[in-house]
Amino acid sequence: MARFSFDLTATDGSARTGVITTPRGQIRTPAFMPVGTAATVKAMMPESVAATGADILLGNTYHLMLRPTAERIDRLGGLHRFMNWDKPILTDSGGFQVMSLAGLRKLTEKGVTFKSHIDGSKHELTPERSMEIQRLLGSDIVMCFDECPALPAERDRIAESMQLSMRWAKRSRDAFGDRPGHALFGIQQGGLEEDLRAESADALIDIGFDGYAVGGLAVGEGQEAMFACLDYAPAQLPEDKPRYLMGVGKPDDIVGAVARGIDMMDCVLPSRSGRTGQVFTRHGVLNIKNARHMDDPRPLDEACACPACRNYSRAYLHHVFRSQEIISSMLLTWHNLQYYQDLMADMRGAIAAGTFADWQRDFHSAREHGDIDPI
Amino acid sequence: MARFSFDLTATDGSARTGVITTPRGQIRTPAFMPVGTAATVKAMMPESVAATGADILLGNTYHLMLRPTAERIDRLGGLHRFMNWDKPILTDSGGFQVMSLAGLRKLTEKGVTFKSHIDGSKHELTPERSMEIQRLLGSDIVMCFDECPALPAERDRIAESMQLSMRWAKRSRDAFGDRPGHALFGIQQGGLEEDLRAESADALIDIGFDGYAVGGLAVGEGQEAMFACLDYAPAQLPEDKPRYLMGVGKPDDIVGAVARGIDMMDCVLPSRSGRTGQVFTRHGVLNIKNARHMDDPRPLDEACACPACRNYSRAYLHHVFRSQEIISSMLLTWHNLQYYQDLMADMRGAIAAGTFADWQRDFHSAREHGDIDPI
Repeated sequence: MARFSFDLTATDGSARTGVITTPRGQIRTPAFMPVGTAATVKAMMPESVAATGADILLGNTYHLMLRPTAERIDRLGGLHRFMNWDKPILTDSGGFQVMSLAGLRKLTEKGVTFKSHIDGSKHELTPERSMEIQRLLGSDIVMCFDECPALPAERDRIAESMQLSMRWAKRSRDAFGDRPGHALFGIQQGGLEEDLRAESADALIDIGFDGYAVGGLAVGEGQEAMFACLDYAPAQLPEDKPRYLMGVGKPDDIVGAVARGIDMMDCVLPSRSGRTGQVFTRHGVLNIKNARHMDDPRPLDEACACPACRNYSRAYLHHVFRSQEIISSMLLTWHNLQYYQDLMADMRGAIAAGTFADWQRDFHSAREHGDIDPI
Repeated sequence: MARFSFDLTATDGSARTGVITTPRGQIRTPAFMPVGTAATVKAMMPESVAATGADILLGNTYHLMLRPTAERIDRLGGLHRFMNWDKPILTDSGGFQVMSLAGLRKLTEKGVTFKSHIDGSKHELTPERSMEIQRLLGSDIVMCFDECPALPAERDRIAESMQLSMRWAKRSRDAFGDRPGHALFGIQQGGLEEDLRAESADALIDIGFDGYAVGGLAVGEGQEAMFACLDYAPAQLPEDKPRYLMGVGKPDDIVGAVARGIDMMDCVLPSRSGRTGQVFTRHGVLNIKNARHMDDPRPLDEACACPACRNYSRAYLHHVFRSQEIISSMLLTWHNLQYYQDLMADMRGAIAAGTFADWQRDFHSAREHGDIDPI
């Protein structure tokens, strides 16, 4: 079985491009990971997700442990087989979503107890249990169990939380054990405090991981503060391992993160927006429910090769959105995921060509005008 | 441009198989037409509908005239282009759905005025307006505007309604005019009264149509009464033209109708059931939400080639249905439409081979046992 490995093929400033190799296939970086919360990327067939160019999906431990349960997925042959996706899967640890979704949480040194948002049943997540669940799911890239405070927060609270997460990172590493072909990523915490981020990075490097996430961002701090943190945080992590920015983000967040040395990202934004009618194009964001699209025979983006753009007018997409037809979610999600994957491919090409600064100028310039003029 | 034509290639008892030729392609009969109410077969990409083997779709005049309007679809190049379906489309006349969906209807000799169920706006449908709408949509097979009383009803009411529909059929024929490559179908009425059905058939034949529908069934009379009517009604219509049974039905309804000389059918049942978790297989009906499927690694039907059966376990389909994931509607609708198209293909083969009676016995026998046993 192939080992997990990461090869940088080019850098341009702080931006990097490369390839992560896993037994289930290669992941071209910078990589955007669509989110398949409950064993499906909402409104998409998995073969369609692959057709957009996605090399890897993200699955949510919190959702899957509650329904249908990790043990059931294991009995059914693992998450890949269950959801018909044979490329790599990264799973989060469950920690973040316990904090954002579950009811009645109790945090101790051991872990977190909480009530399911689905049926109120009581559950426990610890570093050891999170590693077990992610093993049962058959995850290719496993995330350490951590705690992530919402920002803004007091420095003392951030420091305590980070230090707890580092103790949990060590317990995660010990519980993960030796699993050839599977990777374990550590998660840097420390809020917006450079010295705490450094302390966290050193603690993780001391334990040793196959990749390193920048955690605790995109939690309300805003783009400027996030970018200020990314001006130093990635460089605190090993250069020869993948760097993953969790839960990011809007297209310009992603471009700014890649410019600062990030290799992997995930976000529900393209798929969720597809269901609410928000559409991403080279020219920025448009909302398909607006009346200006009602008679517009043009595609969302004439340069896009997705089925929504190849086969349908804005007028049709407006009609099916207004009529609350399922095909609206199907087509707009496909388009948004295609836009995100095309964005990543463009960045990989520009970094490899050493033209990433020019590419960034063009990216921002194309968005300045906004959507094409009404007909 | 190819003319509209119908060629019978084989008969077996009263059952018939053949081919309808249109400029947009051939329709193998007996044919089942999936319903694309609002310019989409719900939860399906049109290329997936075609992949199930569907040669023709049905579109609803009532829904499309209200939203996005026939004039708008015409400006955008017609319904085929609007919804990305280049094979034939049959449109109903709007009459049936005005009666079942619209509010505050008023029926006169001229036509029907009604209020939209979407926004309460006032509209009028007449034979002339229905022909105009169906022309604007670009329909390949246009249906006469008729009135269809719910059953049971008084004989006098049925006779009056049928005679009104026959006057409207003449006005529909006159308004349709001469449109090479496009077909106009008359609709037989007369409830469950054999003599009224004969009177209606004669009136339609006297006007002259490219095909003939048996209307006014599947409106609450039950299968036994419907079959009793189909024992004589199709034979009252021309042998050399397609016979279309509107709004039917369950798989055993369809088999019984084909056995009685019907060539075309449409029904929302396979697509609607896909969204409510009801699944059709050779063994009858199953409900995917039942707990018995929760740990079942087997496909819905091991003999089915649709993506739901090829790529997913019952356990997965149960999980995504319970989680209210859109992929549940996508996969179950695809399966149900595949089941219906496979059923039609099987019947065409059996009729051509002269073994339709045997095939019917096998069909009913396979359904007797019900779903496969739980594991």
